[in-house]
Amino acid sequence: MSWEDNVRKVVPYVPGEQPKIRNIIKLNTNECPYPPSPAVKERLGSLDYDDFRLYPDPSASNLVRAISDYYKVPEYSVFVGVGSDDVLAMAFLTFFNSGKPILFPDITYSFYDVWAELFRIPYRQVPLNDDFEIVKEDYYVENGGVIFPNPNAPTGIPQSLEMIEDVIRHNQDVVVIIDEAYIDFGNKSCLDLINKYDNLLVVQTFSKSRAMAGMRIGYAFGSSRLIKYLQDVKYSFNSYTMNIPSIELGTAALSDDAYFKDVCKRIVATRERVKESLKELGFEMFDSSSNFLFVRHREHSGKDIFDYLRENGIIVRRWDAPRIKEYLRISIGTDGQMDRMLEVLGQMLGR
Amino acid sequence: MSWEDNVRKVVPYVPGEQPKIRNIIKLNTNECPYPPSPAVKERLGSLDYDDFRLYPDPSASNLVRAISDYYKVPEYSVFVGVGSDDVLAMAFLTFFNSGKPILFPDITYSFYDVWAELFRIPYRQVPLNDDFEIVKEDYYVENGGVIFPNPNAPTGIPQSLEMIEDVIRHNQDVVVIIDEAYIDFGNKSCLDLINKYDNLLVVQTFSKSRAMAGMRIGYAFGSSRLIKYLQDVKYSFNSYTMNIPSIELGTAALSDDAYFKDVCKRIVATRERVKESLKELGFEMFDSSSNFLFVRHREHSGKDIFDYLRENGIIVRRWDAPRIKEYLRISIGTDGQMDRMLEVLGQMLGR
Repeated sequence: MSWEDNVRKVVPYVPGEQPKIRNIIKLNTNECPYPPSPAVKERLGSLDYDDFRLYPDPSASNLVRAISDYYKVPEYSVFVGVGSDDVLAMAFLTFFNSGKPILFPDITYSFYDVWAELFRIPYRQVPLNDDFEIVKEDYYVENGGVIFPNPNAPTGIPQSLEMIEDVIRHNQDVVVIIDEAYIDFGNKSCLDLINKYDNLLVVQTFSKSRAMAGMRIGYAFGSSRLIKYLQDVKYSFNSYTMNIPSIELGTAALSDDAYFKDVCKRIVATRERVKESLKELGFEMFDSSSNFLFVRHREHSGKDIFDYLRENGIIVRRWDAPRIKEYLRISIGTDGQMDRMLEVLGQMLGR
Repeated sequence: MSWEDNVRKVVPYVPGEQPKIRNIIKLNTNECPYPPSPAVKERLGSLDYDDFRLYPDPSASNLVRAISDYYKVPEYSVFVGVGSDDVLAMAFLTFFNSGKPILFPDITYSFYDVWAELFRIPYRQVPLNDDFEIVKEDYYVENGGVIFPNPNAPTGIPQSLEMIEDVIRHNQDVVVIIDEAYIDFGNKSCLDLINKYDNLLVVQTFSKSRAMAGMRIGYAFGSSRLIKYLQDVKYSFNSYTMNIPSIELGTAALSDDAYFKDVCKRIVATRERVKESLKELGFEMFDSSSNFLFVRHREHSGKDIFDYLRENGIIVRRWDAPRIKEYLRISIGTDGQMDRMLEVLGQMLGR
């Protein structure tokens, strides 16, 4: 027998590439085109390197308190992690242990099936309808848990609070996770529902709307019991997940609400403008509530457009997967970046 | 049925406390009493907050390359994580899946059984002998994997390279993990053995000898196949575990070898001096190869000394566990801190 026989063998998630070339236009991982708040810059300048020799606060209490204050929820309802991926990985490990299949859409964040495979959680990918919508009744069946993003990724399509509450109401014997990574770009959070349903976990992130993907800060809200179980697993995995800069700079980011709201507003305005321009170029798309557009062209293949953009220094995201291989997911950049993209597409399409 | 029935219920590891009071002498979590290298301070000052809006390099290649260069191992033999706890948690998840019990000492790092419980890995805690030594022959039995620290914690007792190689040679059908968190304080690493045994994982950390506990940087060495399996699990858990400051400041720390060696030398010198003074006060102890001493007093109980030190603003670590409840683990601080501790102990013991 070999040691390799007992290795947990998995096929990992492949993140969008992080090219090191400086002069490309990077519209492939839904990062924020604007810098973090100046409050982050200021706090960075005041960090004392001597503090780094001590362990960070294991409960990241400065950050937890700031999130608690900002969202007006008790501190015991807040969980933080190394990006929302870390929060979601811990949540899969903590809550999805029934042996029954968990449910999520067939077209959605492509990490869900990776976590399920990693932890050997059975799962069923529920097809979206032909309009790429989640059909709530599909989730009114016996299952081991439910997870989907709102708005969904990579479609950008939002769900209503009524729809989400219906799904939770029909699934009170399992944990329901609503992944709100893109909630700040025009949709309404279901956060308030944690007061009504103790089996609801709502997950958000600093990586998109707060322009801090490089700091790795995610967080979640839930009932005190739900969060306590998640904390127990977290403290059984790694006592100190959040390092000092992530705790301190995350706290600083939350102090500057005007900047945050302005960034979100600018991204939404750019998105709506670019949407119209893309339609004029022959693209079709869904009404996105996120910081990206999911588009396909009436005449040209997704791969051709992807390749053409890339040759011209513009990177977007495309999945070679059934149902969506003709689509491109385009992150919303600055107005200048989007104008350049529209110019390149105009060249390709002869307009 | 309730959602709570399918929660993974665990009893988490309890880290040494991180009190927020500034004027205590903190000798309870084996942190470095000296600041990180000035190279870390310099790199901190040159970080650009605007970079934080982008995701970090998922492979943390700057840091991996710096570790590879420093330790003269290929980059494909290096794994990095959010402290060595993150590295070890991922390793338990990746390698210990045989269904047979993994083996580790009864007195050792108290996170091992927590990870085993978290991932439902069967385990057997092998008693140290009466001199608190690991008996290598105890590990020459069928098992699902082996892990122990070198030097062992919290005893500080080192193992020889010959002993470690004997254990690996008898366990080539499982993964053997040597946890070298404290290796830089006087013992010899078994790193070279990764070239001979493809089932060996050697784990180290920036938290002790490199004075960067607050940055959360751990790393491991192993054969290309072993590291590839670990990477696959890591990328199935969280694409980006290392944030930008941890990658960049970790890289900077490695550039300043003179400072690193000086810090280790100073801590070892203080340890040896304090050891003699403690013996004069009636303490007995093992020869520690780490940045802490594991001591008990001939006449006074561990709890009494712990409480007395605490009342005088000095925090050390104690476990209320069989075999070691009379012991205290005292991290090596600055000479000034240790002199103050010796003064307080002198008062208590009337010397």
